[in-house]
Amino acid sequence: MVGKNPASESYLRIKSRYFSTLCLDSEVIRLPKNINECDLLNTINSLNTNSNVDGILVQLPLPGHIDADKVIESISVEKDVEGLSPGNVHAWAKAIPNLVPATALGVLALLKYYRISLEGKHAVIVGRSMIVGKPVLHLLLKENCTVTICHSRTKQLERHTRQADILIAAVGEAHLIKADMVKKGAIIVDVGVNFLDGKLVGDVDFKALKSKTSYISPVPGGSGPATVSMLAGNLLLAAELQKTGDNKKQKECLRHYYTNYAIVPDTNYC
Amino acid sequence: MVGKNPASESYLRIKSRYFSTLCLDSEVIRLPKNINECDLLNTINSLNTNSNVDGILVQLPLPGHIDADKVIESISVEKDVEGLSPGNVHAWAKAIPNLVPATALGVLALLKYYRISLEGKHAVIVGRSMIVGKPVLHLLLKENCTVTICHSRTKQLERHTRQADILIAAVGEAHLIKADMVKKGAIIVDVGVNFLDGKLVGDVDFKALKSKTSYISPVPGGSGPATVSMLAGNLLLAAELQKTGDNKKQKECLRHYYTNYAIVPDTNYC
Repeated sequence: MVGKNPASESYLRIKSRYFSTLCLDSEVIRLPKNINECDLLNTINSLNTNSNVDGILVQLPLPGHIDADKVIESISVEKDVEGLSPGNVHAWAKAIPNLVPATALGVLALLKYYRISLEGKHAVIVGRSMIVGKPVLHLLLKENCTVTICHSRTKQLERHTRQADILIAAVGEAHLIKADMVKKGAIIVDVGVNFLDGKLVGDVDFKALKSKTSYISPVPGGSGPATVSMLAGNLLLAAELQKTGDNKKQKECLRHYYTNYAIVPDTNYC
Repeated sequence: MVGKNPASESYLRIKSRYFSTLCLDSEVIRLPKNINECDLLNTINSLNTNSNVDGILVQLPLPGHIDADKVIESISVEKDVEGLSPGNVHAWAKAIPNLVPATALGVLALLKYYRISLEGKHAVIVGRSMIVGKPVLHLLLKENCTVTICHSRTKQLERHTRQADILIAAVGEAHLIKADMVKKGAIIVDVGVNFLDGKLVGDVDFKALKSKTSYISPVPGGSGPATVSMLAGNLLLAAELQKTGDNKKQKECLRHYYTNYAIVPDTNYC
């Protein structure tokens, strides 16, 4: 964590609390806002080579003078619990199970937990970020969904969202998805994190849509806890991957095991 | 090239001929079909470290006893003119200009050459391969298209294809796309390579669709030459990237320059 940011502090608190309920050690390294890039890269490098550290997560956003991409890409591929280093992006784009952004895994975890059949469904994703939209797209493709990806420059968004069997909202605009933009019986996972009149709300108008959908995830209490749970899964996977050395077969087994999207059941942490 | 395959031989001939018209040296290394993986990896490694070699392309398919992924991933990221190594996949998934699969670049090159506006258009891709479907998806997203990706498990394919402003067919099934599956005025790029009654044909029923579309690329003579042209562009980019050493700014400039999808105009090679 570099500098201070109230939202980031809150995320870190939730993650640390959940990790401690699972008896996973975590430590927050707080660095000054004016740290130079080289010092930050050195910090990460020392964590990369520290055998007591199994996973590294750089809490975004970083101050403007630091090249965030360079920092994220410096994390060792097998400690990259955010799944954003080149080796991991290559893996999820290719549909090889591996360390995948936890928010994207959380979306799949929710769908799998409620035994929602994905094969052949039309999924519409609103948002094309590297931490949600794009990895969710590849995960859903792997599950044989037909996938449409929309974004801020999409024309007639409602024309696309109305066709969705499964709608993933991950754009960061409070209540963007209204009742008339979704077909009856659709399944919605809301990944949005927005503040409206001081209240945390999602990208979906939950109240208006609740009775129209088959399943809809609330904000807070839906995608958020699933994300934290998947982050813990990523940490366990990262720890085990590092133990296997060069044993490719064992690595493959581990990756398959950890990408069954099982949410740890006792989630009374938030 | 490992072993013999008539289609691969034909691709190699076309590529070699085009490269020689551009005064680019190319050499085909033919290896026996029963070569072991280790020897093939050693061959690639010696090309990786040979400063006279600017680009490496492994002509697929490889014999079944060889792990094709491992071989492709062993190519140095800056000599990987096919754009399939982890570093390059990361780049195209993140919309950073770089070495991108030539067939995917060829699709964009055709659209750009005919000055087809992409912003806000609905593009439908049929096919989810790593060499066409997925990279084209990311290239079109970068151009602010809304993108739907369909594949062999898509239900009611025609429901999706009929909505396409731009349709990219890259599935490898002769004449899969029929006249009633496309709306009037659509733009079609056909990447299919199939043989029907001994004739090379695309995934699109060209004759039936010609009068219905605004633009449609033929097979042969459409995506194929564009691909070879883009491969030459990738080789030039690879050569220049290697000269720049660690100069990040210069690399960025080069990548931007080479990803303007300019087709070399004199394409009388096939």
